[in-house]
Amino acid sequence: MTPRVREILSWYGADNPGVLTNLSRMLNHGKLAGTGKMVILPVDQGFEHGPARSFAMNPDAYDPSYHYSLAIESGCNAYAAPLGSLEACAREFAGEIPLILKVNNSDSLYKPKSSPVSAMTSSIDDALRLGCCAIGFTIYPGSSERKAQYEEIQKAAHDAKQAGLAVVIWSYARGEGISKDGETAIDVIAYSAQIAAQLGAHIIKVKPPTAHIEQSDAAKVYKEQNIKIERLSDRTRHVIESSFNGKRIVIFSGGEAKSTEDILKEVKELALGGAFGSIMGRNAFQRPRKEAVTLLKSVMDIFRG
Amino acid sequence: MTPRVREILSWYGADNPGVLTNLSRMLNHGKLAGTGKMVILPVDQGFEHGPARSFAMNPDAYDPSYHYSLAIESGCNAYAAPLGSLEACAREFAGEIPLILKVNNSDSLYKPKSSPVSAMTSSIDDALRLGCCAIGFTIYPGSSERKAQYEEIQKAAHDAKQAGLAVVIWSYARGEGISKDGETAIDVIAYSAQIAAQLGAHIIKVKPPTAHIEQSDAAKVYKEQNIKIERLSDRTRHVIESSFNGKRIVIFSGGEAKSTEDILKEVKELALGGAFGSIMGRNAFQRPRKEAVTLLKSVMDIFRG
Amino acid sequence: MTPRVREILSWYGADNPGVLTNLSRMLNHGKLAGTGKMVILPVDQGFEHGPARSFAMNPDAYDPSYHYSLAIESGCNAYAAPLGSLEACAREFAGEIPLILKVNNSDSLYKPKSSPVSAMTSSIDDALRLGCCAIGFTIYPGSSERKAQYEEIQKAAHDAKQAGLAVVIWSYARGEGISKDGETAIDVIAYSAQIAAQLGAHIIKVKPPTAHIEQSDAAKVYKEQNIKIERLSDRTRHVIESSFNGKRIVIFSGGEAKSTEDILKEVKELALGGAFGSIMGRNAFQRPRKEAVTLLKSVMDIFRG
Amino acid sequence: MTPRVREILSWYGADNPGVLTNLSRMLNHGKLAGTGKMVILPVDQGFEHGPARSFAMNPDAYDPSYHYSLAIESGCNAYAAPLGSLEACAREFAGEIPLILKVNNSDSLYKPKSSPVSAMTSSIDDALRLGCCAIGFTIYPGSSERKAQYEEIQKAAHDAKQAGLAVVIWSYARGEGISKDGETAIDVIAYSAQIAAQLGAHIIKVKPPTAHIEQSDAAKVYKEQNIKIERLSDRTRHVIESSFNGKRIVIFSGGEAKSTEDILKEVKELALGGAFGSIMGRNAFQRPRKEAVTLLKSVMDIFRG
Amino acid sequence: MTPRVREILSWYGADNPGVLTNLSRMLNHGKLAGTGKMVILPVDQGFEHGPARSFAMNPDAYDPSYHYSLAIESGCNAYAAPLGSLEACAREFAGEIPLILKVNNSDSLYKPKSSPVSAMTSSIDDALRLGCCAIGFTIYPGSSERKAQYEEIQKAAHDAKQAGLAVVIWSYARGEGISKDGETAIDVIAYSAQIAAQLGAHIIKVKPPTAHIEQSDAAKVYKEQNIKIERLSDRTRHVIESSFNGKRIVIFSGGEAKSTEDILKEVKELALGGAFGSIMGRNAFQRPRKEAVTLLKSVMDIFRG
Repeated sequence: MTPRVREILSWYGADNPGVLTNLSRMLNHGKLAGTGKMVILPVDQGFEHGPARSFAMNPDAYDPSYHYSLAIESGCNAYAAPLGSLEACAREFAGEIPLILKVNNSDSLYKPKSSPVSAMTSSIDDALRLGCCAIGFTIYPGSSERKAQYEEIQKAAHDAKQAGLAVVIWSYARGEGISKDGETAIDVIAYSAQIAAQLGAHIIKVKPPTAHIEQSDAAKVYKEQNIKIERLSDRTRHVIESSFNGKRIVIFSGGEAKSTEDILKEVKELALGGAFGSIMGRNAFQRPRKEAVTLLKSVMDIFRG
Repeated sequence: MTPRVREILSWYGADNPGVLTNLSRMLNHGKLAGTGKMVILPVDQGFEHGPARSFAMNPDAYDPSYHYSLAIESGCNAYAAPLGSLEACAREFAGEIPLILKVNNSDSLYKPKSSPVSAMTSSIDDALRLGCCAIGFTIYPGSSERKAQYEEIQKAAHDAKQAGLAVVIWSYARGEGISKDGETAIDVIAYSAQIAAQLGAHIIKVKPPTAHIEQSDAAKVYKEQNIKIERLSDRTRHVIESSFNGKRIVIFSGGEAKSTEDILKEVKELALGGAFGSIMGRNAFQRPRKEAVTLLKSVMDIFRG
Repeated sequence: MTPRVREILSWYGADNPGVLTNLSRMLNHGKLAGTGKMVILPVDQGFEHGPARSFAMNPDAYDPSYHYSLAIESGCNAYAAPLGSLEACAREFAGEIPLILKVNNSDSLYKPKSSPVSAMTSSIDDALRLGCCAIGFTIYPGSSERKAQYEEIQKAAHDAKQAGLAVVIWSYARGEGISKDGETAIDVIAYSAQIAAQLGAHIIKVKPPTAHIEQSDAAKVYKEQNIKIERLSDRTRHVIESSFNGKRIVIFSGGEAKSTEDILKEVKELALGGAFGSIMGRNAFQRPRKEAVTLLKSVMDIFRG
Repeated sequence: MTPRVREILSWYGADNPGVLTNLSRMLNHGKLAGTGKMVILPVDQGFEHGPARSFAMNPDAYDPSYHYSLAIESGCNAYAAPLGSLEACAREFAGEIPLILKVNNSDSLYKPKSSPVSAMTSSIDDALRLGCCAIGFTIYPGSSERKAQYEEIQKAAHDAKQAGLAVVIWSYARGEGISKDGETAIDVIAYSAQIAAQLGAHIIKVKPPTAHIEQSDAAKVYKEQNIKIERLSDRTRHVIESSFNGKRIVIFSGGEAKSTEDILKEVKELALGGAFGSIMGRNAFQRPRKEAVTLLKSVMDIFRG
Repeated sequence: MTPRVREILSWYGADNPGVLTNLSRMLNHGKLAGTGKMVILPVDQGFEHGPARSFAMNPDAYDPSYHYSLAIESGCNAYAAPLGSLEACAREFAGEIPLILKVNNSDSLYKPKSSPVSAMTSSIDDALRLGCCAIGFTIYPGSSERKAQYEEIQKAAHDAKQAGLAVVIWSYARGEGISKDGETAIDVIAYSAQIAAQLGAHIIKVKPPTAHIEQSDAAKVYKEQNIKIERLSDRTRHVIESSFNGKRIVIFSGGEAKSTEDILKEVKELALGGAFGSIMGRNAFQRPRKEAVTLLKSVMDIFRG
C-alpha cells in the first residue's frame, strides 16, 4: 500500500472498509498500481452505438474476450462493461482484472428528441455474483430526465456501498438544457463533475473540457475571478478542483477515435492538470491490438510521470 | 453430449449448472438434437394478432394441443407460448418437448401511436410449475418505451437464471426511432441482437435482415469497412458476429406467411450464414398439418446440413 | 412418451406439469427409458459412512466425477448425491443425466443412542441452480424424532413441488420403536412405504423386506388374512400394494455389498414382485468400474424383462 | 493467473465468477501467490480460549492490528478473525490482505458437558461491508448438536456463494461420539474433511491426523484395503484423497504451541502428502514477532517446494 | 473535539460517521466532556430486581423523571434505561442528555435454574424514535444460553450500526459454567470483555474484577506469564489490555450498594488502572439526591484526574 493510495482512500471516510478494499483493488492493479492514477478500458459501445459502428474496424473486437484480454495485456486498472459482456467471460478471466459492471445503458436505436435516457440493465446482485469491484452509472445532467436518473443512482449507489462496492459515475451533460458545444464547455464539465461528487461517486468520469463557457451566469464569474481556462491543463485543474478540491478520483474519457499523436497530446495536458487518469474505449479497441496495447501503455507512462 | 453442444455450453460461463442443463435440454431434443442447431415453434399470435387472424386459415390451430403436438411430431427443439396456451396442455404433454414460457405479450386491440409495449403476463414461478426450460421475452429497441422493457427483462432474467432457467429474448426493433423498412435493416437487426446479448440473453431471436441500412452513422461504417451485406447469408454472418462473435445462440424468425419455396430459400441463406436455427410460427401452424410437418422437417434438414 | 410412462404420470394428478416433466425426465432417461422402470445410482455413503469405508475398495470412487460418469455410462435413470458431490461436477456433466439432490444427510461420527437424525444440508434453491429433477430426503419412521423429520419433508416437499421438482423419500424404519431385525421386517417395510406415500413422495425407496414380522398387531393380521410373504417376490408385491395399490413408484435399495449372484437373484425376485426398480449404491461403485457397469446393465435387463 | 491456480478454480464449476474471483484473490496473494498453496493466519483464540491464555506470552498480540500486520509482513494468503477483530482494523488495512470473516465462534467460559456449540456472531452482510473474500465457519462432526450446525452453515454458505464469497469450513470432530484421541484419528479427520466437502466448502481446515483409528467399522476397512497411514505424509495423502480426490483445497491447522523444529517437521510431512497449506494461529502469534515471521516464511518455503 | 476524543473515535474505523457522531455525543457531554472518560447512570433495576427492592429506600426514585434529572444534574455522559423508563420522559428531557436504550432485560420473578436469559424488550426503531445515541444489551457468557444471546446481539448490533447507533454491551459472566466467585474472577472478567469486543461492542461494561482465578487453564498462564493481578488497578489494566489493547471503551459497574468511602476507593483503583469510566446505578439513585449528586461528581473528579 503506497502512501499515495493510502491518501486517496482517506478521502472516503464515510465508506465502509469493503468499498475502500474495492477502490484499492483497482488502484493497486496493472501498470499504474500504487501510483494513484488509473487507466480503465470501458466497452459499452456495442450497446450504446451498435456493433458495426463499434467493432467493424477491428473485427476481433466483436468478441467479448478480446476486451478482457486487451485490458489485461495492456495493464489497465479495470475493465468496465455491460452485463452481457461481463457474463460472457467472467468465469474464464475470474480474478485477472478488476471489473466494473455498467449497470445502466442507453442504445441509439431510439434517440429521444430532447433528453437521453438510460435503462437499468443489471443490478448490485449481478455485480457481486460476477466478482466486480464497482458499478458504473451514466447520468445526463442538463437533461429533463435528470431527476429520475439521479434517483436511480441514489438507490443503486446506496445498495452498492452497503455491499462494499465502489461507485463510478459517468457524468455527461446532455439534453434540452445544453447546446452541442455546451456538452464539453468548461463550466458544464466542472459542474457535471461536482454533481457526480455530490451524488456520492467514488470515481467520476467526464469528458475533456473545451474553453467554451456555456452558461452566461458562469461566464461572468469565470471572467471576474480570472479562472484560467486557456490550456487543457488549466481546465483539467479547474475540473479537479471542482470535484471536492481534488479529493475525488476524476478520470477523463477520450471521446471519438483520433490519431495517436492527438491522444497523447491530450493526455499530457490532462496529466499536467492533475487528472487521475483516462478511461479510453474506442481509441483503444478500434485500433489493431498491438497498436492499442502500445497506446495504452504510452498513456499509462504519461500518467505515471 | 456432442462436442458441439459442449462447446456452446462453454460460452455461458457465468451461468449456473441449472441454466446449462436447460440449454442442453433444448439443444439435445428433437431432430436437431446434438447438432447445436435449433428449430422452435412459437405460438403467441393468438395473443398478438387475435384468434381469427391467426388460426382461421387452419381451424385445428384454435386448439392449444394442436401446437404442442405439431412441435412434437415435427421434432422441434422447443415450443414457445404464453401462459394460457401452456397451461392448457402442459399436463397432457408433460415431458414430451422443452417449453419456453413467453412471459410478456402484446395484443393489437390497442395500438399505441408511437411505440409498442408488452405486458408481463406470467412469471418465473409459472415457468417452474409448468416444467419450462426457459422464459421468452420481447423487447422493442427503437421504442420510446424501451427503458421500461429493458428493466423488466433485467429483473425477469436475473430471477430466471437464479432458478436455473434459460432466457430467450425476442429483439424486435420497432417504434418512433425506426422506419418500417428500418425494422429489418441489417444495421438495426445486428444492433438488436447485440442489445439482447448485452441484456444477458442465452438465446436471441431476430428477424432475417434486409440489405437496407437505417442509420446514417451506421451506413458510413458499413461502407468504409466494406461489410458484406449483399446476400442474406452475408447479413446473417454479420448478425451472428454482432452477437458476441458467434458465442450466443441466434435464431431467426420467419415473419409473415409465405410460400414453402421462399421459406426454404431464406432458411438456406440463414444456414449458410451460420444461423443457429429458425423460430417459425405462422409459416408452420397456418399451413395444413402435414404440410407444416414436412416444411419444419425440411428446415431442420437444411440446418443439419 | 410410452403408454406406460403416461400411465405412471397419470397417478400424480395433484402435481403440476413441472413435477410431471421432471418425473418423465427420469423415467425417459437411460437404458430403461420408457419402460416405467428405474435404476438410480445414489452416492451419499461418503457422508453417511465416511470416505474410506465407502471408497477405499475402489479408489477411483473418491472422485465425484467417477459417480457421474458411472451413472451415465451404465445408463442409469438418475444420479443422487449430497450438495458437495453435485456441485463438484454439475457444470462438467450438465444435461447428461437427471440429478436428485439429497437434501438431508446423516453422518456416523455421532451415533445417537436412540434415534437417527439427519440434517438439512441443502435446499430447493440449490436443486434449481444445479439443474436437478428431484430432491431426495431420508425419514426414519420408528424414530422418536420422526415428528421433526416428517415436518421437515412436509416443508421441503411443498416447496419442491411448487418449483416443479419431484420428491423422492428414502423411508428407513429405524430407532427406539424398532428392533434390528424389525428394520427390514415385511410389516415395517410395507408400513414405511405407506408413510412415504402419505407424506407425498413421488418416488419411494425402501429396503427389500424379510419374512420377519415385527409388530404383534400386524402379525395377527398377516396370519388371519393369509398375506403371502414367503418369497421376496411375494413380499415385494405386498409392499407395492401398500404404496397406493401400486400407484406410487417404489424402488428398492441393495444394502450392503454382496456377490453379483446374490444381487441378481434378489433383483429378479423384486422385479417378479412388481418393483419399479433398484437404487444401487455400494454394490455398484465399490466394484471395479467394468464390473459395476456390467452389473448395473444386468439389473436393468432384469427390470426391462 | 498461473496454470495451477486456473486448474484449482476449475474444480468449482457450480460457483459463480464472484466466488472464483475471491478464491483467486486468496490464492494469488502473499508469498505463495500463484502456487496453489496457502498459509493463513487465523486469530480467534481470544474468543475461543480467552485473552490471557491467547496473548499474555506475547502481549503485543492483545492488539488486533498486530495480527493484521503480522499476516501482511509474513506474506500470508489471508487473515481470518471474528467480527470485532476485523472491525477494529479493516479501514486501516483495507486492501492489504484478503480477509476471512469467522462468522461463528465458541467461547470456553461455558463448556457444554457433551457437545460443543458455536454461535453465529456475524453475517454475510458484515463480510461484504468489511471487504472480506470469504466466510469461515466451524462445525463439530461427532457432536450431538451437529444437525443445527450443518443447517446453519447450509444457510450461510448458500447466501455467501450467492454474494460471490468463498466458504471455508473448520471441520473439527468433537463431542459425545468421539474420544479425545479420536478427535485427531486418521479415520475421523478424513471423514470430517469429507463432510465439509459435502456441505459445499471451498476450503477445508482440519487437524493433522494421527495414526489412531477411532471407529471399528473403519479400522476393518483400513486394514483390509491396506490404506497407508504410518507416516503423517501418508495420512495427509489419505485426507486429501478423501476430499473429492484432491479437488477441494484442504489446509491443516497447527494445533497447540510447539517447538519450531516440531512444526517444520510436521509441515514437511503435510507438504509431502499433498496438503494445500497450513492455517497457523497460536504457533505464529504466540511467538515473538521476528520469530513468527521467520517461522511463517519457513512454512511457506516448504509448501512452495 | 479534543485530541483524546478524536483518538478514541479513530479506533472505530469500520463504523460509519453516524456511529462516530453518537459516540462523540456521549464522550462530549457532561462534566467529563472531552476527557475520553465516561460516567453513565443506568437504571434497569426496576425491571431486574423489582420496584421496592430498587426504589423504596429513596421513594423519589419511583419516578422515571428522577433518574433523568439526576443524570443531568450530576453531569453524567449518558443515561441508560429500558423502554418504559425512557418513553416516560423522553419528550420532557429531549436533547438534555445522551440516552442509551437497554434493549434486553431480565426480571427476577422467574429465575431459571441454571442460566439467566434476557428478553428483547425494545428495538432499534424505538432507539431512533426516542432520540437515543446507543443501544445497551446484556450477555451472560458462561451461560448455557449464550448462543442465543450472542445471536441476538449480532442482529441488534448490525442493525444499530447501520442506523448510526452505538452499541454498549453489558458482559456479565454467569451460569452453569461459572462459580459464584468466578463471576468476578479476573480471568473471567477479562474474557467477558474480550467476548464483548469480538461481538462488535463500541462500549463494554464489566464488573470490577477480583484476584480470584476461575479457570485452571487460565490460572496456569497467569502464573507462568506473571500477570499482575494483586491490586484492582493491576486487574483493571489487564481487562483494558484484554479489550483490544485498550482500543475499546471499557467501563465498570459499581455492583451492590456500598459506602461512599468504599466506592471512591474502588473508583480510584479503576481509574489508576486505565478504566474509561464507571456505570453507577444503585449506588447513585438509592442515595438521597444531594448525596448521589455529590458522589457522582466525586467519581467524575477521580476519572478526570
